[in-house]
Amino acid sequence: MTLYIIGIGLADQQDISVKGLEIVKSCDLVYLENYTSLLQCSFHDLAKFYDKEIILADRNTTEQGDHKIIEEAKNLDVAFLVIGDPFSATTHVELMKQAKEHGIEVRIINNASILTAIGVTGLQLYKFGKTASIPFLDDHPNLETPYNVLKENNDMHTLFLLDIQPPKFMTVNQAIKTLIDIEGRKKENLITDETLVIGCARLGSGDPFIKSGMIKDIKDIDFGRPPHCLIIPGKMHFLEEEIFNLYSSNS
Amino acid sequence: MTLYIIGIGLADQQDISVKGLEIVKSCDLVYLENYTSLLQCSFHDLAKFYDKEIILADRNTTEQGDHKIIEEAKNLDVAFLVIGDPFSATTHVELMKQAKEHGIEVRIINNASILTAIGVTGLQLYKFGKTASIPFLDDHPNLETPYNVLKENNDMHTLFLLDIQPPKFMTVNQAIKTLIDIEGRKKENLITDETLVIGCARLGSGDPFIKSGMIKDIKDIDFGRPPHCLIIPGKMHFLEEEIFNLYSSNS
Repeated sequence: MTLYIIGIGLADQQDISVKGLEIVKSCDLVYLENYTSLLQCSFHDLAKFYDKEIILADRNTTEQGDHKIIEEAKNLDVAFLVIGDPFSATTHVELMKQAKEHGIEVRIINNASILTAIGVTGLQLYKFGKTASIPFLDDHPNLETPYNVLKENNDMHTLFLLDIQPPKFMTVNQAIKTLIDIEGRKKENLITDETLVIGCARLGSGDPFIKSGMIKDIKDIDFGRPPHCLIIPGKMHFLEEEIFNLYSSNS
Repeated sequence: MTLYIIGIGLADQQDISVKGLEIVKSCDLVYLENYTSLLQCSFHDLAKFYDKEIILADRNTTEQGDHKIIEEAKNLDVAFLVIGDPFSATTHVELMKQAKEHGIEVRIINNASILTAIGVTGLQLYKFGKTASIPFLDDHPNLETPYNVLKENNDMHTLFLLDIQPPKFMTVNQAIKTLIDIEGRKKENLITDETLVIGCARLGSGDPFIKSGMIKDIKDIDFGRPPHCLIIPGKMHFLEEEIFNLYSSNS
């Protein structure tokens, strides 16, 4: 039978594609990964809208592939739902690989991802360098990686994805504080009060919030409900600057 | 009223989200940009499925924003449909900006993009550097940019988006030939017969085709119908290599 890996988008139950919804309704089993991201609706909203029982897949199982899901997909049509786009996070490729190795047909249904939803900031997506993750500092007191990625990206724009450990969700404010903290240890003058940043919350939803400006102007703004992300623009084209100014914290 | 900028995904009429479809059905006017990408269905398939008259917007109008659309959105709900995700191409930010400047509410409905659909190759998206475009060489006989981006990306992966000038669509084969041609002029030994590449066709559709291998093994493979794209992996993690081998042209 077929393993369908289906992106369900960024905000709520209605972000699934028409094709994806049809497939979910026709599948024998429906799994949902529920850890790498956060929707603006509840698990029950999803189950009700899809009119299906949804089984929560836990992180350990899916990161290592899942023998149970693979076994089931040999005889049943199985939908594996992923928030955002199926492979924007790193953890589902293994599931696809194991299914293919077992001769199970795999079909991918793509959807929106934070990696392109940030296009709304006006920064051109093709000019982004490597994406960096900022984990909670308690877990990584000597954290340097996001700082090093920023440095390596040079003139390119840098997207920082912020840690999600429900019920803890890193805010733009915490992310900025973390970068300032690393600056204090590394002292390479990469992050200053005047560094330009764009803080984003709830991109892809009906209630997005975007503010641009210098770190000193952004660091205390309340961005509201998660998820948040942070962008440090590289060299901006004047058209990019125009949109940057549209979101200015001073306007 | 509201200007809705709605991504309609990568393959066909059923890739629009449930939310997007509802909005399209409720709008007074529906525009479609029809130049930066290519679906696997026809214009008429879209119009029929949406049960709406669709107006084709031409490139010049939308790149510079569109005064007609802005004027209409002052009094009507207008949907502007974009293949893929609204801001994956560079040309629609201006439309959003002008609408906002005229006090028109703008709402973005995100969808799948080639920029994340390439995750199916097993390469981790956060390790991609700048994206490069390869235009037809006839138009740019001294083309160097994609080669320079590849060099600049260093250890990072590089995605090449291939020119689309309907009815001409650049193939993986033509893209490889173009890179070899630039190598012949630049002679920096960046592209050789042994360079590893991944050729992709029709990602996001029900009929994707992906082949990985050295340039000498890939350059004559027929990838079939457009659109195509090409990837040159940077330094691969062993998990990335495993999936790379799954798509090997020798297997």
